[in-house]
Formats: sequence, C-alpha cells, structure tokens
Amino acid sequence: MKDIKVIAFDADDTLWVNETIFTVTQERFKEILSQYVRAETLEEKLYGFEMRNLKIFGYGIKGFMLSMIETAIELSAGKISGAEIQQIINLGKVMLDHPVEVLPNVEETLRALKESYTLMLITKGDLFDQESKIARSGLADYFSQVEILSEKDEETYRRVLKRNNVNVEEFLMVGNSLKSDVLPICNLGARAVYIPFHTTWAHEVITPDTSANLTYHELPDISLLPAYLQQES
Amino acid sequence: MKDIKVIAFDADDTLWVNETIFTVTQERFKEILSQYVRAETLEEKLYGFEMRNLKIFGYGIKGFMLSMIETAIELSAGKISGAEIQQIINLGKVMLDHPVEVLPNVEETLRALKESYTLMLITKGDLFDQESKIARSGLADYFSQVEILSEKDEETYRRVLKRNNVNVEEFLMVGNSLKSDVLPICNLGARAVYIPFHTTWAHEVITPDTSANLTYHELPDISLLPAYLQQES
Repeated sequence: MKDIKVIAFDADDTLWVNETIFTVTQERFKEILSQYVRAETLEEKLYGFEMRNLKIFGYGIKGFMLSMIETAIELSAGKISGAEIQQIINLGKVMLDHPVEVLPNVEETLRALKESYTLMLITKGDLFDQESKIARSGLADYFSQVEILSEKDEETYRRVLKRNNVNVEEFLMVGNSLKSDVLPICNLGARAVYIPFHTTWAHEVITPDTSANLTYHELPDISLLPAYLQQES
Repeated sequence: MKDIKVIAFDADDTLWVNETIFTVTQERFKEILSQYVRAETLEEKLYGFEMRNLKIFGYGIKGFMLSMIETAIELSAGKISGAEIQQIINLGKVMLDHPVEVLPNVEETLRALKESYTLMLITKGDLFDQESKIARSGLADYFSQVEILSEKDEETYRRVLKRNNVNVEEFLMVGNSLKSDVLPICNLGARAVYIPFHTTWAHEVITPDTSANLTYHELPDISLLPAYLQQES
C-alpha cells in the first residue's frame, strides 16, 4: 500500500477500552433501580432516552449521566430518591475518572508506524473528556494531529482531510466502528481497516446489507497493521 | 494597526448572548428549590458545585445541569422529588435549545472586516453545543476557521496559532473576558481588544491588580472595531 502516507486511528475501543466501562456502569445502574423496575425494561428505556438525547446532548458521558437520571425518574414514576440520583451521578463521575486502559499491542504498533507514516487520532465525543483521555493514555506524542469531532460522517472527515492537506488516496482510517470509521471513509474513496472490539454500542451497529457493500479490510488485531501495510495493493 | 492580518473573535457574550441565559435559568432554578432553601445559600452552593465539577466536566450546559442537580439534592437533604429533578433537566434542555441571539452590530462588523482580514472564531466550551450555536447563529460563513477549545490559556492559543500558521504580531483577539480573551493573549505578545458585556460569570473575573498589568484596548461596542484598526500603532 505504497500510496498511504497518513494513518488515522479512532480512539475509544480502538486504542483503549471504552464500551466496557459503559457496560459495567449499566450493571450498577440496574442495581440502584432494582426495587423499581425489571432489568430488561430498564435497558430498553435507557437506550430510548440516550437516542432522543443524542440530538440535544451529543456523545459523551455527561449526556449519558443525564439520560440515566431521566430513565430513573420515569421508570420509578418519580419515586427515585435524591440519594439514589446522587449515586447515579457518582457512577458517571467514576466513569469520567476511570483509568485509561490502553489495549494490547497498541503502543508498539504506533511506535513502529510512526517511523514511516504521519499518524493522526480522529475521535468523536465530548471535547473535555476525550482530551483528558488522550493525555492520560500516554499516547499523545505518537500523533501529529488530534481531531475531536462531534460526529464522524463524510462531511466532517472531508473537513479534517482538507484542513490537514491530506489527499484521500494517501489516507487510511483504522477503527472499531463500521458506522463511524469505515462507512464514511469508503464513501469518500479512502481506505479503511476495521479492527472489531468484542462489544459494540447498539448505536454503532450497521445492517449486514450496508456493510456488504463496503470495501474495507478487517484485521483481528492492531499488531497486524504494519505487515498489512507492507502488502502491495 | 497595519501588521494585523488575522482577527479572532470569542463567541459567547461577544458575538451572541450567553450569560443572560444562565442568569434566567438560575432564577427558575431558585423557584423550583424555594421550598427547600433560601436564595442566597443556593447561589453560593451552586457556584461551589460548578467550580468543583469544572475539573471533571469542563465548561458547558450539561455540566451546569449536573451541578444544579447535585446542589438541589444537597440543599434539600435528599428530599427533592424526581419530578422536580426532571424540571431542572428540562431547564437545561431549554438552554441548549435557546435561539441564538446575535448581538447588535456584530454581523455588519464581521461583513466589513472580512474584506480585509482573515476572521477566526475561537471559543471554549462544549463541542456539540458550541457547534450547534455557530450553525444556528448564521455567522459561520464569515470565519475561515473555527476553533473550539476545552480551555483558553497561553498553551491552547499557542497551539491554535501554530496550527493555523499565524504569527503573534499579525494576530488580534477580540472578546468579552479579560481572563480568557485578553490575559493569555497579552502574555503571548499578541494584541487584544476587550469588549465588555453587561454581565460576567464570576469564574471569568480577574482581580484589578492582574488587569492593571495588561496592555489591551477596550471598546464599548464591536461596531468601533474597524475604525480602531485603521489607526496607526
């Protein structure tokens, strides 16, 4: 892949663990609400609030905290106590302060690739939280440019490439979300490598019909990326 | 001021109304809590939560909503009801959806300056919320570059100037906050114009001792900016 000059990485669940923290938090949230509601109803209701609130709050933990609170109020028919709501807020604060757990083989791979490529980090979500995670990950110095976007779609990727003077044929995006890291990149005519994470947020799932039409390469582990880039294509 | 090539504007309370929306919301918040607590205690307590949470949440309305909820729980000794907390969340949603009220003379001034200068917008706060306000303001097209930062200090301004290939002697910052728009700019050796807004958030106030040491120009209204730029200096 001799044309590639710039490799951009997604962050959450590509470089470090993220979705797992949401899953663990939801389990604790269920315990707090166990006297008011059945676990299955809760999951569905919370996802409903999350989706509605996404348009108002955007991605990130603060919006997720507010969605948990709204879910708790509705499902308890307003009977949830102040102390329990404080427990929910504290769950969110623990998430925000969670140590950044860099995934296996990430740092070695970035170190190897930095010799020959310009590396970028392109993530979506809450500006403050993402900056904090990048700083705490210890990986910041591997990246020439960090872009935190409110959404990852064709339009925002196009803007990022333009701002950084990167041509589509020189660009490779690497990430764990077919919806955010692969689909818009393929539509732009650039290349993408998909590295699945064991858990995917429902919002990031795309239908098999959609993914069948995409031309991308799937790797089971980030450590295989340098060898893949050595291949002709 | 013939050296100046790039003029950057702060957004909240420089281009459009912001602090007023927080003030109005706090009044409604006081009404919701009136049965539990005296208004003066509430204001002090809320500011305390805001300052502590700033380190965890960053700037923005979602963090402010969570601080209001925590204040309500603590001051009501946990007696606040679910319905009342939902009212507080709804106050925040109204803030997020508030029409963007562009300040008088802003658009005419930007239109005039765009003829001769590169205009930038540099704001701090929540990425999603600020992008939404910029889009809704109808002013986006006046700016060659929009930078949304999690904090405005020497380090972040330095990074923005570097990324955009702007020299300090060519750069002028215009804003309503001595702390965020003037102080770090003066420390970098660039120039700043201070346009006060009638209300300033306590967090953005700096001591007279600090401001006395700053070299900046104060204008009572943005419409005076083009004439000021015509002056030699």
